[in-house]
Amino acid sequence: MNSKFIVIEGLEGAGKTTVIQTVSETLKQYGISDLIFTREPGGTPLAEKLRELIKQGVKGEVLTDKAEVLMIYAARVQLVENVIKPALSKGTWVVGDRHDLSSQAYQGGGRGIDQNLMESLRNAALGEFCPDLTIYLDLPPDVGLGRVHERGELDRIEKESLDFFHRTRARYLELVAENDNIRKIDATQSLEKVQAAIRHTLLQWLQEQ
Amino acid sequence: MNSKFIVIEGLEGAGKTTVIQTVSETLKQYGISDLIFTREPGGTPLAEKLRELIKQGVKGEVLTDKAEVLMIYAARVQLVENVIKPALSKGTWVVGDRHDLSSQAYQGGGRGIDQNLMESLRNAALGEFCPDLTIYLDLPPDVGLGRVHERGELDRIEKESLDFFHRTRARYLELVAENDNIRKIDATQSLEKVQAAIRHTLLQWLQEQ
Repeated sequence: MNSKFIVIEGLEGAGKTTVIQTVSETLKQYGISDLIFTREPGGTPLAEKLRELIKQGVKGEVLTDKAEVLMIYAARVQLVENVIKPALSKGTWVVGDRHDLSSQAYQGGGRGIDQNLMESLRNAALGEFCPDLTIYLDLPPDVGLGRVHERGELDRIEKESLDFFHRTRARYLELVAENDNIRKIDATQSLEKVQAAIRHTLLQWLQEQ
Repeated sequence: MNSKFIVIEGLEGAGKTTVIQTVSETLKQYGISDLIFTREPGGTPLAEKLRELIKQGVKGEVLTDKAEVLMIYAARVQLVENVIKPALSKGTWVVGDRHDLSSQAYQGGGRGIDQNLMESLRNAALGEFCPDLTIYLDLPPDVGLGRVHERGELDRIEKESLDFFHRTRARYLELVAENDNIRKIDATQSLEKVQAAIRHTLLQWLQEQ
C-alpha cells in the first residue's frame, strides 16, 4: 500500500489531539510505523511564523478576512510542498491536525468568504492535491468551546462568536455530505467510544485500500 | 478633484525613491499637500512582517513561488483595506512605491506564475480596485542591478538571476502597452531629465482629471 495522508478535522475542543494519538496507535498496530505529524496552519518554520500572525494578529491592526485566508494558503503551500509531498513520495505516512477542509469551513462558512473565491484559491494553491482520508469530529460548538475555555487563554479565532462556529460547523457538515473520503465521528460520545469509533473507521478504510 | 492613488513602478535601481520625491513636490506645487506615502509589500504593521518574510525568507526553508505571491497579496489586502482606501475616502492622496503591477511583472513575468492564476488572485484580493495613475521607470536590468550592487547587501529577490529581471521587465513592458493609465519613463536618462519627464507627465495627467 502506498503511503497516505490522513487528516483530523473538527471545531475547537472536538478532541483532535487525543484522536491523533488513537490514529497513530491504530496505524502502528496495522504495521505502519513510518509516519509523521503535521499541524495547520504551521508545520514549517515559515508556516509557523504565519500561524502566529493568523492566531494572534498584530496589535492595533484589523486582520481582514481576505488577508487571513491568503496567509493560511501561503502556509499550506509551504507545508504541502516542503513536508507532506516529500514525505509521501518516500513512503512516509502523514497524519495532519487540520488541512484544507478547515479553511473551507472556517473561512468559507464561518467568515462567509465567497465560495467561488475559496475554490479558486484552493485550486491556485493546491491543484489536485488532497488528503486520502479525513476524519471529522462533529460536536455542537457550545460543547467544544466549553472545553476550550477550561484550557485557559483564547486565541483570535477561539474568541469568535458562537454564531461563527455554528456557520463553521454547518459548512463542515455540508462538505462531509458531499465527499466520500470524509468520515464523520460523533465527538459528544465518551472518550472510549470516540476512540473505538476511530479505530473501527480507520481499520475498515485501511482494508479497503 | 477627488483624491487619487499614484504608483511608481520599476525594476531595482530604477530610481523610484528619487522619483517619489519629484512626484510629491509636483503635487504640492499643484496645490495638493494632503498626501501619504506607501510601500509594497508593507505599509501596515502586519504587512511589514510579511515584507520581512518575503524579502529575507526563513533560513533553511525554500520559499515556494506560490506562497510568496499569496503572502504578497495578503500584505496588499491589509494595505489597501486599512490604509489606502480609508485615506482616499477622506480626501488624502496616496503615492505608492510599488503596487499590483509589481506582482504581475515579478511573480507573473519573472517567476512565470500562470497568468490566469495571477488574475484570479488579483480579482480575489482586490476586486476592481486599482491605481489612478502608474508611472513605470524603464531601464535594462543590468543598469539597475549595477546601481543596487553599489548600495550594499542584496535581499532574496535582488539576488535573482539577470534572466529573472529580463522576464520581469518584458512583462512590465507588455502591461504598459495594454494599459492607458500606465506612463513609461526612460530611466536611463540623467536624473534631471527623468525628473523633468516626471513633472511633465504628472502635470499633463493632472490637467486631464
